[in-house]
Order: sequence, then C-alpha cells, then structure tokens
Amino acid sequence: MADQAFVTLATNDNYARGAMVLGKSLRNHNTSKKLVALIGPQVSEPCQSVLKRIYDEVRVVDVLDSGDTAHLAMMKRPDLGITFTKLHCWALTHYSKCVFMDADTLVLSNIDELFDREELSAAPDPGWPDCFNSGVFVYRPSMETYGKLIQHCTEHGSFDGGDQGVLNSYFSNWATTDISKHLPFIYNLSSVAIYTYLPAFKQYGGNAKVVHFLGKTKPWSFTFDLKSKQISGNVQDATSHPTFLLDWWMLYSSAVVPMLQQQYGDQPFNS
Amino acid sequence: MADQAFVTLATNDNYARGAMVLGKSLRNHNTSKKLVALIGPQVSEPCQSVLKRIYDEVRVVDVLDSGDTAHLAMMKRPDLGITFTKLHCWALTHYSKCVFMDADTLVLSNIDELFDREELSAAPDPGWPDCFNSGVFVYRPSMETYGKLIQHCTEHGSFDGGDQGVLNSYFSNWATTDISKHLPFIYNLSSVAIYTYLPAFKQYGGNAKVVHFLGKTKPWSFTFDLKSKQISGNVQDATSHPTFLLDWWMLYSSAVVPMLQQQYGDQPFNS
Ligand SMILES: O=c1ccn([C@@H]2O[C@H](COP(=O)(O)OP(=O)(O)O)[C@@H](O)[C@H]2O)c(=O)[nH]1
Ligand SMILES: O=c1ccn([C@@H]2O[C@H](COP(=O)(O)OP(=O)(O)O)[C@@H](O)[C@H]2O)c(=O)[nH]1
Ligand SMILES: [Mn+2]
Ligand SMILES: [Mn+2]
Repeated sequence: MADQAFVTLATNDNYARGAMVLGKSLRNHNTSKKLVALIGPQVSEPCQSVLKRIYDEVRVVDVLDSGDTAHLAMMKRPDLGITFTKLHCWALTHYSKCVFMDADTLVLSNIDELFDREELSAAPDPGWPDCFNSGVFVYRPSMETYGKLIQHCTEHGSFDGGDQGVLNSYFSNWATTDISKHLPFIYNLSSVAIYTYLPAFKQYGGNAKVVHFLGKTKPWSFTFDLKSKQISGNVQDATSHPTFLLDWWMLYSSAVVPMLQQQYGDQPFNS
Repeated sequence: MADQAFVTLATNDNYARGAMVLGKSLRNHNTSKKLVALIGPQVSEPCQSVLKRIYDEVRVVDVLDSGDTAHLAMMKRPDLGITFTKLHCWALTHYSKCVFMDADTLVLSNIDELFDREELSAAPDPGWPDCFNSGVFVYRPSMETYGKLIQHCTEHGSFDGGDQGVLNSYFSNWATTDISKHLPFIYNLSSVAIYTYLPAFKQYGGNAKVVHFLGKTKPWSFTFDLKSKQISGNVQDATSHPTFLLDWWMLYSSAVVPMLQQQYGDQPFNS
C-alpha cells in the first residue's frame, strides 16, 4: 500500500551507510511498502544521492532550522537533538502507518506483516524487558501525537537521554495493556541478547527477521576484506553474532559500495 | 487463603540459606499465604530444623527415591536432576494455586496480589525477553500438568539445560497470548538488568518488589562483616545492586544466623 512506509534516520555519513544497507535489505526481501529516510543536513551529497537511489523519499530534517515545535523545544533541551530528530517521523502524515527502523538494523526476511499491528507496537528491550526497544516500532504519523511527544520530551526529558526513554515514558502502558503490541523479539533481535542467553538464541535465533546492532560498536566500526571475506577490527568487541555482522558486510560490499564508488568517482573513498 | 502457598526449593545447605532469607522476607511483609520449602535429602539436619521454623511445610523431594514418573524420567535424563526436582512443585495438589520462587530471590514488599494471576504467569527474562524467567512464577498444582511436564522434559530435554528451558518450551505461548500472564519485571528484578540498562533501573527500580540474585555469584558467595556492615569477597563480581545485596545480608545476619546458631550450638558455623 502506497500510504505505508518503512522509515529510518541518519544524521551523518556513518549512519547513512547503515541506512543504505537497511534499505537494500528491505528491497531484497521484496517489501511492497515505501521507503523513507530522514537525514540530517550533515549527510554528504554523495551519500544523499545513494540514499535517493535506494529510498523512495529522502527528507532532510533539520530540527535547528525547521521553525516547528521541535525547534522551540530544542532551544530548551539541546541535549535531546537526535531524539527530537527521530520523533520527527510522526510528522510524515502523508503515510497512514509506518514502521520506524534504526539505521543499525538489518532485515533478514520480508516483514511487511508488521503493518498489521497498531501504534505503538515494539519488541521488548533485553536489559529492562518492561521497556520496549525503540529500534523497531510500528506507529501512526499524526501531527497531534508529534506535538504531544515533543511536549512530553521537553517537560519530562528522557530518562535515558535518548528516544527510547521518551517513547517508553509516553507510551507507558506498553508493558501491561495489549499483547498484540508486543512484537516478537525476532523482529528486533538485539545483538546483546545473543551472549546473555546463548541457549535461547540457539533455540529461537534461527527465526530472526531483524537483527539490531545495538550498542557502541556498529557494523561500520569494523573493516572488511572483500577478497578473504574477513572482518577485522575489534572482533572480540563484536556485540553481535559474527554471522549477522558478515551478512551486513556482504550486503554493504556487494550492493552499496558500487553505488558509493559511482558517486564518489575517483575520490579516495573509505569503504 | 489456606490453599495458596509460596513454594521454594533448596537441594543443599547453601540454597537452604537462601530459602531461609526468602521465607523471612515473605513473613516480614506479612504474607497471608502458606510457605512451602521443597528440599533435597542432602540438606543438613540443622538447616532442615531452621527451615521448619520459618516454613509451614518442609517436604523432602528425592527424585531418585520417589518411584514416581519423575524417577523414571530421571533414569533417562540424569542431567536434568534439579530440573525434575523443581517441576515437583506441580505435585503439591493440596494447594489450589502457588507462586514458585527461586531460593535466590528476596521479597521487598507484600506480593500476595500475585495470587490474582493465572498459570503460567511470570516476568520476562532480560537477555531473551520472549522467554519468561522461571525464578518467580504463578502456577496451579495438578498431577496431570506434572506428568505432562515430566514427559515433555524427557522427550524434548531442556534447551538451556535447566527448568527455564523446559517451562518455556512447555508454556510456549507465554510471549504472544495473554498480557495478564506477563508479571511486571519488578516482581523478578534480575540483578543483571541493573547494569545492562542502568537508566531504566534508576527510573523504575525504586518500585522493585522482588529482587533475583540470578547468575553464578549468589549472596552467600560473599562474606559479611556484621560490625562494619561491609560485604567482602569479589564485590566487583556483585551481579546485583550493592543495596540489594546488603538487604539480603542484613536479613540473613539479623534473623537467620541466630536461628542457625541455636541449631548448630557450639559447633563451628560458617556464616
Ligand atoms: O549520531 C546518530 C545517532 C543515532 N542516529 C539514529 O538514531 C538511531 C538510534 O541510535 P543507535 O542505533 O546508535 O542507538 P542504539 O540502538 O545502539 O541504542 C540510529 O540507528 C540512527 O537511526 C543517527 O542518525 N545519528
Ligand atoms: O544446586 C542447586 C541449584 C538450584 N537450586 C534451586 O533451583 C533454583 C534455580 O537455580 P539458580 O537460582 O541457581 O539459577 P539462576 O536463577 O541463577 O539461573 C535455585 O534458586 C534453587 O531454588 C537448588 O536448590 N540447588
Ligand atoms: Mn540502534
Ligand atoms: Mn535464581
């Protein structure tokens, strides 16, 4: 359906590379939904061009510039910059329903069935499982909700300094009210979960539909040798199952790097 | 109600000390329910005596001895010994409803409201949050369920080698079916959660009702100096918030140690 979209966010070129891989992974699994990337003004021209080839819509969201409610809120709470930018996804009212996905997620199979869910559906956060993880969530764009979220955020701040804290305190009955709003964990398989309860990962992880490279070390923090198909860098730091990390890099190098090379031409390009 | 009980399990003197503290914490918060301790035959006489002073019922469960279905199952799956022993709680059919609690849990306020829930209610496991943690759960004793659980366990084993794997694969619709069977996480606040998502703990941890000293290092793995009220041992290993660990030791030293001293008399006694 044309009025439904997957939405992601990238405020810089690193997260933009994540968004490229995410977009490609959605396309490869034949999504019938639109793809929207919200980007910050710092994202370089070549990256913007590549994003435009993968996404149906690439929209620059400059909270500092925008003169909307988020702009005003931002003056009071400069610490919540990227959070306000993420909340901007509620302003995409030309869609009736969306699935937001962090730029550090990777889709492993078609997940269009997520659009059967209602706002706010999300998977539990490993760590504090009565909170949902805000890396993947189903929502309904609405200027009213957008305004209320910004207001909530300005008044109460964020208990974790980011969007997850705000969204959990705003949608505070998620844990107790409606099981259909609990996405199965395999729609947001946080890499940390693999090590904290390995037997469960072995039992259920084979059904993973979305892997989330949550935490400080992102796929793009490593380097990858195309010939040997080896990942280097602090691999013991790899917060995620090496296979998923390899999946990310295989897709990046086969589908995204060629597009980046076209854009950057002969300029030195850090793959 | 006389036909409702909190049930725990201790197969040795260390876990028995945990059970003593747990029982005391339930009494201190004025539970109106019966307290039942299932114990293994290795629990020493003095520990059994102390447990009998705290618990309404102390029942020796010797799976190897018992000649019941669990005994037969055990011959085939000796690896699942303590798991079979824990499943034995379903055989307590003189109660209509029970709450099982691991011996490494500590109650921080009255939790009798848990008996309003139905089988199988439990809190999510941090780590793999579509699994419930089997340290605290509401269930209905039933010989039929008991038999089915043992059978399930014998046929499918346990994906994690313990009771949590068996119970999650038996009650496999927990994650997706009925939100009322999701106990709030504060009824089974696993110590690991504190560090993996500290901001959430700071936000919600003040409401904790049950803390669970999950993992290898148990409260009784430390030592405690009564005079200085200092915990020693590998405190950086403390998988739990130091305050909870101190709570455990304060209760142990003030309420349990005197009872143990009475039982052990002049014998050297390792507190
Ligand atoms: O500097 C940043 C930080 C975050 N993000 C966006 O916000 C999401 C959440 O941040 P992140 O994934 O780093 O947090 P984590 O999932 O590790 O908690 C990212 O996936 C991006 O979509 C971004 O665009 N720029
Ligand atoms: O040697 C043992 C191991 C376990 N248990 C019982 O089984 C529960 C589950 O084990 P544990 O708490 O050690 O597992 P964890 O919660 O750390 O996964 C304990 O709390 C005890 O009630 C026991 O009696 N003896
Ligand atoms: Mn993320
Ligand atoms: Mn335990």
